[in-house]
Amino acid sequence: MNFTNDDVTKLLEIIKSRRDVRGNHFISKPIEDEKLSLILEAGLSAPSVGYSQPWEFVVIKNKAIKQKVIKNFQKENEKAKEIFKDKELYKNLKLEGIEKTPINIAIIYNKPNKDILGMTSMQKMGEYSVVCAVQNMWLMARALNIGIGWVSILDEKQLLKDINKNENSTLIAYLCVGYVDEFLDEPELKTLGWEKKKKKEKIITFLK
Amino acid sequence: MNFTNDDVTKLLEIIKSRRDVRGNHFISKPIEDEKLSLILEAGLSAPSVGYSQPWEFVVIKNKAIKQKVIKNFQKENEKAKEIFKDKELYKNLKLEGIEKTPINIAIIYNKPNKDILGMTSMQKMGEYSVVCAVQNMWLMARALNIGIGWVSILDEKQLLKDINKNENSTLIAYLCVGYVDEFLDEPELKTLGWEKKKKKEKIITFLK
Repeated sequence: MNFTNDDVTKLLEIIKSRRDVRGNHFISKPIEDEKLSLILEAGLSAPSVGYSQPWEFVVIKNKAIKQKVIKNFQKENEKAKEIFKDKELYKNLKLEGIEKTPINIAIIYNKPNKDILGMTSMQKMGEYSVVCAVQNMWLMARALNIGIGWVSILDEKQLLKDINKNENSTLIAYLCVGYVDEFLDEPELKTLGWEKKKKKEKIITFLK
Repeated sequence: MNFTNDDVTKLLEIIKSRRDVRGNHFISKPIEDEKLSLILEAGLSAPSVGYSQPWEFVVIKNKAIKQKVIKNFQKENEKAKEIFKDKELYKNLKLEGIEKTPINIAIIYNKPNKDILGMTSMQKMGEYSVVCAVQNMWLMARALNIGIGWVSILDEKQLLKDINKNENSTLIAYLCVGYVDEFLDEPELKTLGWEKKKKKEKIITFLK
């Protein structure tokens, strides 16, 4: 298949308007099953080292489990508040949409129990494959005008226990998935002045 | 911005037709500067934990450096051949396009020297942000009808040394970027019978 300039423009628009959505922007509208399927299909179409497909997607609607995840977040966020105690902004940020979103998805890496092509020198390639799946899902959600927020202020072992996984699994991402009131034009942490945008010259170098 | 059903279809086409391109499919046609810029722009538009933008992109056209990377690959691949000595197919696979592609890109994670929002519980989020950038670049390249092959059969320390990075940097990905004679319809490792496609029921679970 040959793509056109218009396709390039469209993809860049999707990539650039994708946001990490916080809890204050999600609305209660349910996610249609066929849209969830498209998001998962995008994940399943990600590259994986040695075609190992080491991913597992746990779709969570269960309220009791969500409550456990919220507790996990709150505990970890208290530690974070202490770390950032000199920054007034931190404690005012709404950093998760666990309860506000109709769907949470835990994305898991399960280490294969055999040698994998492409993983013999760099073992972390398996985990990285699963991250590629997350990014595919994020872009597909954006094209469907659905927001995703990636929650990482979590104790991994506790989270795995709460979704019935043992410690042979690795938590890659915990996603809150839902419709939104708006997609912000820019990353909120940039707008709020938490971090500045880095200059291209500092992060792209050429060895000619 | 509101995207349409057509946009969703287009994105899914790009996602599904993206391939990990091996050395036997690259052609010698140079990559235009404006297309390289678009690929890098897609990477720079990736999500990053706490807006930390912990990435660095090293664009390599230098032949002497490429030769060092080839040597690195060959040494690591000898070890891999020993691991897969019972699989006749392995040694016949062309697993890299380092020399055949006009551009290689090493994608690096530089750990920030301060606390990062969202990384206080899960330290690996910084690396994962950089992987999201790789996937954005891969999709943009595909929309531009340019192939990317991710080479992971490399000794990380040696690679970093060869591109003048010290051990404070982490190698996330080494990409071979070039035009191709064709994009295969399916992952080659599936077609060749190296691995089977996993069943959805085994990798998607629901907690209702």
